[in-house]
Amino acid sequence: MTALTGKTRINLLIGSPISQVLAPGWLTDRMQKAGYDGLLVPIQILPDRLDTTLPELMAMPNVDSILVTLPHKFGASRHCSELSPRAAILGAVNAMRRQSDNTWYGDNFDGAGMLQGLLNAGQDVVGKTVYVAGAGGAGSSIAVSMLEAGATRLALHDPDVDKQNALLALLEKHYPGRASKGSGEVAGFDVVINASYAGFKESDPLPVDPSGLSALTVVADVITDPVPTKLLMEASIRGCVTRDGTHMLEGQMQLLFDFMTTR
Amino acid sequence: MTALTGKTRINLLIGSPISQVLAPGWLTDRMQKAGYDGLLVPIQILPDRLDTTLPELMAMPNVDSILVTLPHKFGASRHCSELSPRAAILGAVNAMRRQSDNTWYGDNFDGAGMLQGLLNAGQDVVGKTVYVAGAGGAGSSIAVSMLEAGATRLALHDPDVDKQNALLALLEKHYPGRASKGSGEVAGFDVVINASYAGFKESDPLPVDPSGLSALTVVADVITDPVPTKLLMEASIRGCVTRDGTHMLEGQMQLLFDFMTTR
Repeated sequence: MTALTGKTRINLLIGSPISQVLAPGWLTDRMQKAGYDGLLVPIQILPDRLDTTLPELMAMPNVDSILVTLPHKFGASRHCSELSPRAAILGAVNAMRRQSDNTWYGDNFDGAGMLQGLLNAGQDVVGKTVYVAGAGGAGSSIAVSMLEAGATRLALHDPDVDKQNALLALLEKHYPGRASKGSGEVAGFDVVINASYAGFKESDPLPVDPSGLSALTVVADVITDPVPTKLLMEASIRGCVTRDGTHMLEGQMQLLFDFMTTR
Repeated sequence: MTALTGKTRINLLIGSPISQVLAPGWLTDRMQKAGYDGLLVPIQILPDRLDTTLPELMAMPNVDSILVTLPHKFGASRHCSELSPRAAILGAVNAMRRQSDNTWYGDNFDGAGMLQGLLNAGQDVVGKTVYVAGAGGAGSSIAVSMLEAGATRLALHDPDVDKQNALLALLEKHYPGRASKGSGEVAGFDVVINASYAGFKESDPLPVDPSGLSALTVVADVITDPVPTKLLMEASIRGCVTRDGTHMLEGQMQLLFDFMTTR
């Protein structure tokens, strides 16, 4: 990397644990290649210290942005003066940046990264129907991003019925009449997304029944290991365009880089 | 540098302002070359936030050490559970590290860096007499380090008489009978050190009268720009061994590196 100096702009990635994160290397490399004198530094903040630590980080004049991973996405959103519409809906941020008036703006790029990954393959969701398996953090953010981007109708399924219903209620409030309960049957949907852990282990059942996929269905998965998942292999056999977890990550890195370095 | 990951050990350098610091580049390079997966990150902490920010930094599990520059050297010392003898005498630290029991140990390497720079040139101060011009932060730390290292007698001069007397009183308390007021006359001293700003500007008067220097006198200066200073040029003409501010800095970097990376 280019020389680290006292003028290097500092960006932080906070979470706990922190040893598993990959973004510091990726985004620092991207900054360096773009000639931007910046660094993304991984910092572990224990869960019970977020509310005392985060205001101190926000008060450091040479810190431009703070990326947020588990378990701090919800807590960090409460420290922002302003939130993007999707971050406000989700009540969770994974990125915040200092604004010119020294207040902090929060956004959530988890779902937007999935959308960007689709766009990078020439697949828009405007006017499309989308099926999402999984109503956790990733599924919530993806569902909001798809509806925000113009998907006409979204079906959602999660074996945890309470989680599924809570997300459906949230989507109904903000995008009335466009989200409904999914059945596992994906025939007729333009885009099918796995946002659940199913596919992580060899023994996992498929998150949706692949028999409903046609060659016109776009199929995406959040899982980055293994790549491709069994679902994506079934989709490829049927001639579908597929996007794996690394495409979502790449899309998200692209958006985070722009968010961090654009003033 | 090698890839930055979530496992990279984080070290911080705190101060305000921060844009002038050079240690992050130097020490990060040194870590990388030694195969130590670490980073020294410059962080600006505004003066009135030290007491709220520093405890949060100390609670970050992936932060191993914190280097300290102006104006936080005195304030940071109060957050350490344990201080080196010289840091305790000075009431100021420029480096603190996490100990195995998660408490923090503080030390002060400003004067030790000067000593290390002399040692690197084969010049010990054991049994020697030392003249120090300047009783500010650098002069204080250098005076303590010289007496700690075994200088038998030390003379100190500062045009600010209150500052001079305060440091002499401190030295008298900890090293009774070994420190006295200097007159500007350096004849008979083994080691002569400029720890004042004199020599920074072309128009500055010499900090000591060079006519008392002999070929056996070792002359050192804290000033890093210009190098050599007028004092060191006068000393060279007289055949003295000289050490400039960059040798002190190099000595200090060497000590800080060991302090930060040794567990």
